[in-house]
Amino acid sequence: MEDTVDHLAHERSKAQFNVEEMKIIWAGSLHALQVSDRIAKLVASDPGFGKENRAVLSRKDLFKSALKKAAYVWKRINELGLSEEETSWLRFYVDELAYDYVHWGMFVPAIKGSATEEQQNKWLPLANTMQIIGTYAQTELGHGSNVRGLETTATFDPVTDEFIIHSPTLTSSKWWPGGLGKVATHAVVYAQLITDGKEYGVNGFLVQIRSLDDHFPLPGITVGDIGMKFGSGAFNSMDNGVLRFDRVRIPRNQMLMRVSKVTREGKYVESNIPKQIIYGAMVYVRQTIVADASIALSRAVCIATRYSAVRRQFGSPQNDQNGNGIETQVIDYKTQQSRLFPLLASAYAFRFVGEWLKWLYTDLIQKLEGNDFSTLPEVHACTAGLKSLTTSAAADGIEESRKLCGGHGYLSSSGLPELYATFVPACTYEGDNVVLLLQVSRFLMKTISQLQSGKKPTGTTAYIGHVEHLIQCGCNVKKAEDWLNLCVILEAFEARAIRLLVACAENLTKFANPLQGFSELSPDLVEAAVAHCQVIVVSKFIEKLQQNIQGIGVKQLLETLCYIYSLNLIHKHLGDFLSTRSITPKQASLASDQLRSLYAKVRPNAIALVDAFNYTDHFLGSVLGSYDGNVYPKLYEEAWKDPLNESVVPDGYHENIRPVLKQQLQNARL
Amino acid sequence: MEDTVDHLAHERSKAQFNVEEMKIIWAGSLHALQVSDRIAKLVASDPGFGKENRAVLSRKDLFKSALKKAAYVWKRINELGLSEEETSWLRFYVDELAYDYVHWGMFVPAIKGSATEEQQNKWLPLANTMQIIGTYAQTELGHGSNVRGLETTATFDPVTDEFIIHSPTLTSSKWWPGGLGKVATHAVVYAQLITDGKEYGVNGFLVQIRSLDDHFPLPGITVGDIGMKFGSGAFNSMDNGVLRFDRVRIPRNQMLMRVSKVTREGKYVESNIPKQIIYGAMVYVRQTIVADASIALSRAVCIATRYSAVRRQFGSPQNDQNGNGIETQVIDYKTQQSRLFPLLASAYAFRFVGEWLKWLYTDLIQKLEGNDFSTLPEVHACTAGLKSLTTSAAADGIEESRKLCGGHGYLSSSGLPELYATFVPACTYEGDNVVLLLQVSRFLMKTISQLQSGKKPTGTTAYIGHVEHLIQCGCNVKKAEDWLNLCVILEAFEARAIRLLVACAENLTKFANPLQGFSELSPDLVEAAVAHCQVIVVSKFIEKLQQNIQGIGVKQLLETLCYIYSLNLIHKHLGDFLSTRSITPKQASLASDQLRSLYAKVRPNAIALVDAFNYTDHFLGSVLGSYDGNVYPKLYEEAWKDPLNESVVPDGYHENIRPVLKQQLQNARL
Ligand SMILES: Cc1cc2nc3c(=O)[nH]c(=O)nc-3n(C[C@H](O)[C@H](O)[C@H](O)COP(=O)(O)OP(=O)(O)OC[C@H]3O[C@@H](n4cnc5c(N)ncnc54)[C@H](O)[C@@H]3O)c2cc1C
Ligand SMILES: Cc1cc2nc3c(=O)[nH]c(=O)nc-3n(C[C@H](O)[C@H](O)[C@H](O)COP(=O)(O)OP(=O)(O)OC[C@H]3O[C@@H](n4cnc5c(N)ncnc54)[C@H](O)[C@@H]3O)c2cc1C
Repeated sequence: MEDTVDHLAHERSKAQFNVEEMKIIWAGSLHALQVSDRIAKLVASDPGFGKENRAVLSRKDLFKSALKKAAYVWKRINELGLSEEETSWLRFYVDELAYDYVHWGMFVPAIKGSATEEQQNKWLPLANTMQIIGTYAQTELGHGSNVRGLETTATFDPVTDEFIIHSPTLTSSKWWPGGLGKVATHAVVYAQLITDGKEYGVNGFLVQIRSLDDHFPLPGITVGDIGMKFGSGAFNSMDNGVLRFDRVRIPRNQMLMRVSKVTREGKYVESNIPKQIIYGAMVYVRQTIVADASIALSRAVCIATRYSAVRRQFGSPQNDQNGNGIETQVIDYKTQQSRLFPLLASAYAFRFVGEWLKWLYTDLIQKLEGNDFSTLPEVHACTAGLKSLTTSAAADGIEESRKLCGGHGYLSSSGLPELYATFVPACTYEGDNVVLLLQVSRFLMKTISQLQSGKKPTGTTAYIGHVEHLIQCGCNVKKAEDWLNLCVILEAFEARAIRLLVACAENLTKFANPLQGFSELSPDLVEAAVAHCQVIVVSKFIEKLQQNIQGIGVKQLLETLCYIYSLNLIHKHLGDFLSTRSITPKQASLASDQLRSLYAKVRPNAIALVDAFNYTDHFLGSVLGSYDGNVYPKLYEEAWKDPLNESVVPDGYHENIRPVLKQQLQNARL
Repeated sequence: MEDTVDHLAHERSKAQFNVEEMKIIWAGSLHALQVSDRIAKLVASDPGFGKENRAVLSRKDLFKSALKKAAYVWKRINELGLSEEETSWLRFYVDELAYDYVHWGMFVPAIKGSATEEQQNKWLPLANTMQIIGTYAQTELGHGSNVRGLETTATFDPVTDEFIIHSPTLTSSKWWPGGLGKVATHAVVYAQLITDGKEYGVNGFLVQIRSLDDHFPLPGITVGDIGMKFGSGAFNSMDNGVLRFDRVRIPRNQMLMRVSKVTREGKYVESNIPKQIIYGAMVYVRQTIVADASIALSRAVCIATRYSAVRRQFGSPQNDQNGNGIETQVIDYKTQQSRLFPLLASAYAFRFVGEWLKWLYTDLIQKLEGNDFSTLPEVHACTAGLKSLTTSAAADGIEESRKLCGGHGYLSSSGLPELYATFVPACTYEGDNVVLLLQVSRFLMKTISQLQSGKKPTGTTAYIGHVEHLIQCGCNVKKAEDWLNLCVILEAFEARAIRLLVACAENLTKFANPLQGFSELSPDLVEAAVAHCQVIVVSKFIEKLQQNIQGIGVKQLLETLCYIYSLNLIHKHLGDFLSTRSITPKQASLASDQLRSLYAKVRPNAIALVDAFNYTDHFLGSVLGSYDGNVYPKLYEEAWKDPLNESVVPDGYHENIRPVLKQQLQNARL
């Protein structure tokens, strides 16, 4: 078994496409590939970024080591004079959560998005040099999804020209902000603005929470860590925190005043900058989460695919009954393929839709700057829906990848448990996935209802404009190969989505009270919203295929993946497709046949397709997924590093094992 | 929000059934309820069993604390003179994994099942008093599912009358056995028996691995811990281990010789005890895992249900638009109900099928003792299938329950992360769930193929005997209420299962090579096996309802849960039901309508239905799920216990935070 290095080489030699070209496709451009590759190697070769065994550390030691690594990241960025692009790759490849993640990912963007130019000029230089470290304090113990329900108050005091930030109840305690627990010196705090005796809704305030001299919390501030979270390692290197204010005063000009402000006299004034621009920030963050989903899923798939090619279990039919001789690689079992290859296809699908979302965001910003808000609702719904769809699928896919590795996937050294624990909260933060789908469905119902008034849906909802055709069209597939037609696939998805949507819209009219109807039908509406989001993913994959794609075999493989992604979804949601009569049972069975042939096409290319992600062993952090496939010696070696193996006889033997064996428990002090 | 204690009281007052009677149903009998209740309270009130915050501990400290608790468990069992029944409840409620779990759960049963009477007389008294501590060493680095492929050898040496236990390769290292890493003194080791120059397959051997004097490994033995596993706490308090033998000699009579033995001369002899009895042990263990699945799922559902009744988010339609006034309990959202209530129903469904499996096992043992092996294949397939079905559903259900709690479910103090990490390997151990379903499908294909020869299927496959009727029958549902008919439901499930099975059988005939056909169609076969297992769960739930069920409203509620379980499965697997034409799209839509009404029926009873599990707060170990619903103060209190909160300024501030803030990183030693 020690010859598995050769084994993956053999797998690689079977690839029927140009892996280097595929790497460019995955990276987005040759430039992106080159930069990321250079930084990945830099990180992997620097012992300061070594991934020591985080899983075995106590909370305190884990946190301390994360502090150290974050400081080292900042040091290296400055020493090496990295560009912004290089810096973000460096953070990406270092792959450890710490306070800086929220500082750069949420605090700085919040200032950029909501502060006036004057405020930005004051605060950004400090934040950009980390002379202050910030967090984003929105969620409270009692309110997360319902932001309008936040209870923290910011009451203007015209006498002193200050806001009084206060936590009136236990449930108003800020709860969850990353970096808040032990590190952040400042926070953007969301609170109910009260001035002139009136409430003006939730606004952001920049509040210093710790002294820059000795790091002690400022007077009136109670702050701490909210404790351990899912998994070992993962988010536990991050100090998500709790924060309470006892009438803390801040200068008036620390209200973030880009869209509305309070004057010296205490008047609440809205600026001429439209409120909608705050949606721009949401679109931005969610777009990055879609990108994260494809990364996280592709990491898991890379590990599971490589391990499935190394792992052999049971004799192949060619061998003797005793299972002797060379056993079958588990990747050759069709059940393994039918679980693994759709995930591989999803990783690519999410990558491409994420790339498109990035473009969409840039496009949106341009439009907003030109005071064109027309596409905002559609873009917002699209991003919310895709965030929900991709994070749910990626989280489930990571766990499935782990199970595909059998028992060994359950070891921390497989890398999969921590990957899951780190990624899965993306289903909850930045909008609970179900709450988001409800928003999407609300938007879609509106889109449908406006059809009558002649409003033409655009962008990702354009297909809804073809409702008449899509409601009555029939799928033409007569034999399995007929499914290898991107137009046929797309139409089936569009037909299913629109028929579900129209059915919801019709059912809604049966309720006298529309709100009650929406509530009653909400499970159906969520399913219809998912169907719509799948149309987007499939159509963006197809659009990608229509681009100029270089390299032998690259386009063919991507097409195969696109078909696998789509046909597998048809199989998974077959109830939808059949009940809406978008396809027939016979066509469904042909789709399954076709899917089997597609798996066979992917099989020889599987390893090369995950190689194309270009992940270093350092980044993967998995003994099961390492590039050379030398799994067993690595698993073995890794095990011995556990602190329990430092001594042959374990700590506690004399107190708690020997007395059991010697039947001397009566006297033992327990 | 501090008044939530009253809130759950109000919820409880809405129950429309007798909770105390439901507790008896859940427990299985009044006696079981009384004993378990008494022991649960005993455990909860004993500080020695306190659940200190395991999540924050380093691996070493966690392990040490588990050693201590295991010793205390044993001490109390002896001091209190507990019966076997009480003892098992005590272990259950203590709820911490340690070496004793494998000692009692696998080592002792292995001796009972595979040792001769003489051997049992020698070893059981030692094991029963824990003068020796044992583990079960089957899996190796290279082989888990394929037990026949194990590489460890046991070669008989007639000169010394000994077996030589040896690990010829790295991949032959034993890997995973619980309690092996640091504690076990003995192991039942599975190895390829070689005598007289011939291999006789895998047999069990009792091998001492550590000295009873000083706990050092015996000569020739390398043993250690395999390192951290999924999650914090969870299986990390257990020392799953690695074990290598360098020609270790054991006396011949330490081969477990109940079914086959090696004589003094080195002859391999099979006893007259049929080999099949070893399947009895497998049936036993898998039956207990099904019971575990209902326990684990019901714990998660209990937490999520109580929290969903406490958590309020967004205004109800009656309130004003700002979300002021009393917000809606999230349990009142139909999306929340459609995710939560099917899990609640599944917990009950799995409980009842588990109870029936327990009976089935006893029945099987009686038959085996009477040399009646006729039902064994069916019982074996049924147990394997149900193990797979219930563990996969329970694992997914726990994660869904966690997500139903929003962000707070991601905190360790919710209890849900550790519950998941502890339970999820049940999808892998004692048979990988997919491998098991493949076995089930093989058995089912055989059952179908034997129909022609007139062999009548029995037990859980009896319905396959009605293939002719089930293939052409039609579902009669015309309005939503028609679904409230257990016969209609069962027939729909049977029709769908048999049609999938027959389709597989027919497709198999298209392959010249049956093995290849089986391999190609294996994904379909797995789905058909799942459909068959669902028939079993549904039918056992229905049988339960036909028993004499006491107490106001109890039977009605159970019926409602049975319908929810079934109709939700129809919705989830709608593709199957429609493509096999077991029901029509119109009937599917009526099923969804009916499901909505059923959720409304469960809603006022939801809290009482989880109260009926009779779990103590100690056992639940969740601030979100505590009986009184006093969630927020408990969440808040729990947070402050994290070691990071021991000091206001964190350890590491001077080395790694201050230099960042003060821009003095150049000089920092990092
Ligand atoms: C790891 C992590 C990091 C975080 N970091 C930050 C941070 O840096 N800063 C910050 O401010 N916050 C942060 N958060 C908080 C996060 O934003 C919230 O947890 C998230 O918004 C979800 O809100 P919630 O927890 O209140 O869920 P809830 O809204 O309480 O959800 C509970 C359940 O109710 C359901 N539900 C709620 N409303 C509705 C509805 N209207 N209709 C139907 N169902 C509904 C949900 O679907 C869910 O099943 C973080 C959270 C996590 C887990
Ligand atoms: C927490 C935990 C505790 C354990 N405790 C013990 C213990 O005390 N003693 C002990 O001896 N062992 C123990 N084990 C080991 C456990 O029994 C094995 O992990 C289990 O049997 C699965 O085998 P595997 O890991 O070899 O998986 P593999 O067989 O390697 O599975 C890998 C993948 O291959 C697929 N696959 C394998 N064979 C086939 C096939 N024929 N057809 C299709 N697909 C296939 C599987 O579905 C899976 O997706 C433990 C494991 C865990 C996780």
